[in-house]
Amino acid sequence: MITTLNLETIYAPVQAGMSRVPALIRETLDTPILKMREMVDHFFSKNGKLLRPALVFLGAGISRTLKNEHRISHERNETAELHLAAAAEIFHAATLIHDDIIDSAPLRRGVSALHIKSGSQAAVLAGDYFHDRAIVTIFRHGNDRIIPLFLRTAGEICEGEIQEISEKKNINMTEKIHLEIIRKKTASFLACALQTGALIWGIEPGKAEALGRFGECFGMAFQITDDYLDFSGEESKFGKTLGSDLEEGVYTLPVIHCLASGERDKVVRILYSRSHKRRFSILRETLEKSGALDYALAKAKGYMDMAKRELEVFPPSVFRTSLEQLADYALERNC
Amino acid sequence: MITTLNLETIYAPVQAGMSRVPALIRETLDTPILKMREMVDHFFSKNGKLLRPALVFLGAGISRTLKNEHRISHERNETAELHLAAAAEIFHAATLIHDDIIDSAPLRRGVSALHIKSGSQAAVLAGDYFHDRAIVTIFRHGNDRIIPLFLRTAGEICEGEIQEISEKKNINMTEKIHLEIIRKKTASFLACALQTGALIWGIEPGKAEALGRFGECFGMAFQITDDYLDFSGEESKFGKTLGSDLEEGVYTLPVIHCLASGERDKVVRILYSRSHKRRFSILRETLEKSGALDYALAKAKGYMDMAKRELEVFPPSVFRTSLEQLADYALERNC
Repeated sequence: MITTLNLETIYAPVQAGMSRVPALIRETLDTPILKMREMVDHFFSKNGKLLRPALVFLGAGISRTLKNEHRISHERNETAELHLAAAAEIFHAATLIHDDIIDSAPLRRGVSALHIKSGSQAAVLAGDYFHDRAIVTIFRHGNDRIIPLFLRTAGEICEGEIQEISEKKNINMTEKIHLEIIRKKTASFLACALQTGALIWGIEPGKAEALGRFGECFGMAFQITDDYLDFSGEESKFGKTLGSDLEEGVYTLPVIHCLASGERDKVVRILYSRSHKRRFSILRETLEKSGALDYALAKAKGYMDMAKRELEVFPPSVFRTSLEQLADYALERNC
Repeated sequence: MITTLNLETIYAPVQAGMSRVPALIRETLDTPILKMREMVDHFFSKNGKLLRPALVFLGAGISRTLKNEHRISHERNETAELHLAAAAEIFHAATLIHDDIIDSAPLRRGVSALHIKSGSQAAVLAGDYFHDRAIVTIFRHGNDRIIPLFLRTAGEICEGEIQEISEKKNINMTEKIHLEIIRKKTASFLACALQTGALIWGIEPGKAEALGRFGECFGMAFQITDDYLDFSGEESKFGKTLGSDLEEGVYTLPVIHCLASGERDKVVRILYSRSHKRRFSILRETLEKSGALDYALAKAKGYMDMAKRELEVFPPSVFRTSLEQLADYALERNC
């Protein structure tokens, strides 16, 4: 399928909010300390996809549509949308900064990872600072359904990260455990962002759960596609160093699938070989030829189909259409 | 003054709670992940002074005495005391783990700092995990006065840390800025722990503020004494590497005071000299002879006197006595 989808089009119904997020992120992270300001500037010199803020706004849009409140102004809730959208991105940034330290990743969004630019010590602190600002914002603008959801999700992200490092270089890791890790590390927070938007407007529990399931399936598909692109993408577009998970001993779905296939011995040999430089290209070829990359892509597609089905309980709206388009985009993107 | 004060005696009125804290810390941080369990075990292989849990219990005791509720059982509040005491120590541990990475400190409580034992990457994650567990506990067991206090304090600690790294190697740093940094980094959290205990039992705002001022002054004195011991203490008792602040370019009160005296040129020469090994002992001697160490100790004593005066509004009780003794102990300790 050839698609002309781009994020600008997909985000159009929530453009008013989205356009204010980058400035609000800077404002929330404003500090008189020069060194921290430099780190904020460096990290946000590229905005990334701003997927989490978009999900907050889209969840809010869906929820307002349900209650026919789309055209009613409600200042407190609208302010909450903006601040929680910014907080979601800042919280995400905090986890990326620490993740990049933990995984020794050199690149982020096509520029040096923060620990490369400013040193690991300062980057640890920047992650803590971002995390602190996000939590304060969530407590200021969240409600008694959003705050517990957020805390639970923050805990899950942390658990997923711990499980990931404990499974590093485990050639016997099962697909089930791997999927559980990415559910916790990535999918849970995308679900949380979407639900947060909806919960601002008091969506009923059953519908909030449907959005949660959309978010989780969407997140699984998103992460699996990311891991697929880590082998098949182009570095210049992807904004990360290809194969960096591999170098850190983090085995993603294509590798895990291939390890459970007739190619196991070959893959083990490649993973244990000493020549780091050649290893990646040989593995890439093996994953390609064995069908493991196709397998991962099909798995992502399966999750995305499940995600889309969750949207059927919602009446048609520009927000629902955007979520459906976002699902297609997430699978078809090359960056 | 020769004192026979020791922490066991001082903590006696809150011993029932204190004895349960180490196990509750382990329980709160329990995880099936072996690598994380090893880090928890390593970090808590030495318990430290458990000052923050003690302050939670003492604050609670003072508050119960005021309301004549000391002998009334109130299960929910008593459970909250225990969990918030454990959370205060876990939160403190999280900041120490990241601080030690940020400051490249090799020792903590007489054993290897966690980033030395398990690597910086795993230690970043352990700090995040401890932080997450502490916050979840605070939100579960805190109330609507404790939670905002805690969030504000967490923000202050982070700000203090940022200011500290931005002032590294600044030979023109003023005493005023330095005191502001230690107020944020150390004193604010000690005040928060004490107030948290009192707020569990619904202490009136004016009294809570008096405890806050005690905690801040106590914390200032405590940190200044720590920085004094960093020059005059014995490494085997102190549990940290002497002079490590200096090596990291963090100038504490004795150095700042000496830089503002007639000895400035000499101190600058010492700070800029290349021989790291000799530098510490020469500086130590200079600080000693110039009276800068005595100045710091007198400053600590001044804060401790201010702290004690704040307790005068409270009726005599074993808890108030313990706080007074803790103030004496903090000044007179050698570790």
